[in-house]
Amino acid sequence: MLFRSWIYGIHAALAAVANPARDCRRIVLAETAKREMETRVAQAITEAHKALPGRPSVERMSRTDMESLLPPSAVHQGLAVLAQPLGETAIEDIVRDCIEKSDAAVVILDQATDPRNVGAVMRSAAAFGAAAVVIQDRNAPAITSALCKAASGAVERVPFVRVVNLARAIGMLKDGGFWVAGLDPVAGRNLAEVDLSGRVALVLGAEGRGLRRLTRDTCDELVKIPLDGGADSLNLSNAAAVALYELARRRP
Amino acid sequence: MLFRSWIYGIHAALAAVANPARDCRRIVLAETAKREMETRVAQAITEAHKALPGRPSVERMSRTDMESLLPPSAVHQGLAVLAQPLGETAIEDIVRDCIEKSDAAVVILDQATDPRNVGAVMRSAAAFGAAAVVIQDRNAPAITSALCKAASGAVERVPFVRVVNLARAIGMLKDGGFWVAGLDPVAGRNLAEVDLSGRVALVLGAEGRGLRRLTRDTCDELVKIPLDGGADSLNLSNAAAVALYELARRRP
Repeated sequence: MLFRSWIYGIHAALAAVANPARDCRRIVLAETAKREMETRVAQAITEAHKALPGRPSVERMSRTDMESLLPPSAVHQGLAVLAQPLGETAIEDIVRDCIEKSDAAVVILDQATDPRNVGAVMRSAAAFGAAAVVIQDRNAPAITSALCKAASGAVERVPFVRVVNLARAIGMLKDGGFWVAGLDPVAGRNLAEVDLSGRVALVLGAEGRGLRRLTRDTCDELVKIPLDGGADSLNLSNAAAVALYELARRRP
Repeated sequence: MLFRSWIYGIHAALAAVANPARDCRRIVLAETAKREMETRVAQAITEAHKALPGRPSVERMSRTDMESLLPPSAVHQGLAVLAQPLGETAIEDIVRDCIEKSDAAVVILDQATDPRNVGAVMRSAAAFGAAAVVIQDRNAPAITSALCKAASGAVERVPFVRVVNLARAIGMLKDGGFWVAGLDPVAGRNLAEVDLSGRVALVLGAEGRGLRRLTRDTCDELVKIPLDGGADSLNLSNAAAVALYELARRRP
């Protein structure tokens, strides 16, 4: 079942309005919002209209009325959009889209649960041009308001692929020519020492528990981000950002 | 004024208990917590006792009783510690501690406000061996429970330096031999192209607004993390992690 939900925060909401693939039902702007924000919303609507007419008109309302619509303590920055979920993307689509590309990166999350963390991973995936973020369906967060806010518009640009069986999805990526590198703090080799050219899938485990045994066994190689002696580990989204940066840094 | 506060979550609470410099007043463990956790708490207490006796004994209580002590929806993982704040570190102390070092990194946050983001920066600073995180006192988050949780124990290892005047603090770091690099998405040069050996201070602006004019003018150089065409920016802690990784990667 797909439910519509509120996407709030300037970046997240403007990106939703500007995305022709996103069905927006209401656009709410705080009465106190600056005129500049009204202009940006209008531009985003125009952008979307090129491909798809029918964006709703902007509703101006008091912050109090607005906040009564949104989840408690939502950091909305005066702008919110009620939208239908985006259509789902299958792992097969990602493999097919990448088959002609000499370089591509996919991030795979093994049992991540925190929507803010997953949203931040989406944001970094967009920032470093990743083709998709793949997550196991069970226990994974839905694309909620909190995830959209943390993703800062990236959910409109990077496919978020939910799969029932992660090992099977990894197998399909391998068949599509992806090299699968699992991030593991106790791996023998550093990320920077490994050949990560071409199509690469980065697999990251849940905070605290790391990669599950089955996922680990499915990887072509385990690599680590070298950390200072006393440190345990990086936050999930920070680890993803560092790995994606390392991949992007070495691309031509 | 310094207030005691609850530090919760396994990593954050165990690190607090094991830190001899941390004055812990209560140690609370959920009745449902596994025996292994009791052992780890006992080890952390023993560790602290080597330097400082007098840790309180562990109080076992129901999750309901425990949650009545903590902030609403705290992700406590069955362990919480009521602790006094750590003593403050001055920027002069950081400069003095680094003066003999051939390499050192300091992270400077210009107007960051989100405690979870700042906590994640602390965690990455610890992970990449940074000497300190410096933040302007005004509008900066206090070292609250949320910041400690996101930092995952890093507040016990990396000094969090609050300064009244950020430009003055940057000046003191410069006098101490630090090269000051400001992260700016529109900078001309990429992080990886710049000589970042020796003592380096990385300056990061607030999400959305970036570096303030005055802070920007104080930097020796502006550098950017190269991002994909459509992307705006990285999450603050992700940007800090990438920059700290790049510094650490090139160290001997």
